Amino acid sequence: MTLPKPGSSERTQLNRMRERAVDDRTALYEVLDSNILCHIALSIDSEPVILPYGYTRDGDRLLIHGSSGARFMRLMAEGAPVCISVTELTAIVVARSTFNSSMNYLSAVIFGRAVEIAGEAKARALEIVSDGFLPGRSSEVRASTKKELAATIVLSVPLDEASLKIREHGVEDEPEDIGTGVWAGLIPLTRVAQDPIADDDESRQLPVPESVRAFIAKPKA
Amino acid sequence: MTLPKPGSSERTQLNRMRERAVDDRTALYEVLDSNILCHIALSIDSEPVILPYGYTRDGDRLLIHGSSGARFMRLMAEGAPVCISVTELTAIVVARSTFNSSMNYLSAVIFGRAVEIAGEAKARALEIVSDGFLPGRSSEVRASTKKELAATIVLSVPLDEASLKIREHGVEDEPEDIGTGVWAGLIPLTRVAQDPIADDDESRQLPVPESVRAFIAKPKA
Repeated sequence: MTLPKPGSSERTQLNRMRERAVDDRTALYEVLDSNILCHIALSIDSEPVILPYGYTRDGDRLLIHGSSGARFMRLMAEGAPVCISVTELTAIVVARSTFNSSMNYLSAVIFGRAVEIAGEAKARALEIVSDGFLPGRSSEVRASTKKELAATIVLSVPLDEASLKIREHGVEDEPEDIGTGVWAGLIPLTRVAQDPIADDDESRQLPVPESVRAFIAKPKA
Repeated sequence: MTLPKPGSSERTQLNRMRERAVDDRTALYEVLDSNILCHIALSIDSEPVILPYGYTRDGDRLLIHGSSGARFMRLMAEGAPVCISVTELTAIVVARSTFNSSMNYLSAVIFGRAVEIAGEAKARALEIVSDGFLPGRSSEVRASTKKELAATIVLSVPLDEASLKIREHGVEDEPEDIGTGVWAGLIPLTRVAQDPIADDDESRQLPVPESVRAFIAKPKA
């Protein structure tokens, strides 16, 4: 199967940023796999609406789930055009001027239309979503009930039209600002998962499960 | 001045989440003040487009800046309807079923139209933006030049139509899942600013500035 390269569509080149557009599907997938929060926009009556959702990448698609009672989910399931953004800030770039100050970041933007996953594939797709959040969690818990499956919409968004922009370098000051006695540098940002908090007496007596340990070792947000 | 309450418009009630809609402007401002990354959506030719931006809250408005060469910024400056989302994940909620697993979060969503800030007010607005990222930074660096001001668009978005949703409680398991030997709990997530990295020899010989120390003491992302 041949996939278009990320960044190859006109829409994904909308923004005139000086930052590097990364034409590399492996790098796109790495960014998608190290995050779990995306922002999804729809155009409703020609006006934009955004909501945050969790997601999991599964091969060449994103999986998103939500309540079948949510209008936003139903509009996506009906095939409305969506734009999805996944952004990770990695540093504050402190320059010698406010103009040259910036942020280092990883930014994936995906355009497409969702397809609803129904029937036999739905329960498996939800397990993949769950394991994307907490590796292996689906095998630690019971299967979803029919009622739970009915209350959930699962959507697949193809990663055909996607762009990745990365800023990961240091300060870019004006030559005349250097030597003026002003500090410049980076403040790296990281996300940290703290020790898990068991929710009840039963859980306090059980070992912390593998899925939770795996998440803490490599937290996503 | 009387402000509409957050969450009071029909659009901000679009999503049928069980989570708490917070009808409290102080809480909205706290969430906006403890983050710097927002996602902005526009509807362009009736299709949604999202991009990530930094922002600063200034009273009852958000300030956003970007390149005057960016089409996205120009469309906002022209008064296109915008939707802005600020989301902070605070914990992974690990339930005894995938269905009841969730995330704790703070989610602000703002609808409105931007107004461009020009003339005398522009330089001051950019200082407020800069100080929103790094407290007091604007007084540590030189003023912006006319050329820098011309290369930048500064936008103000009123916080009149805004909603805040918060999930900050523990696991909600089905009664029949409790006592089945499955661990349930929370994994708290935090953002951490690491030690600053001076960018060059000059900066390595200077003390880390107050603005950077203030950021590290209370990091935003």
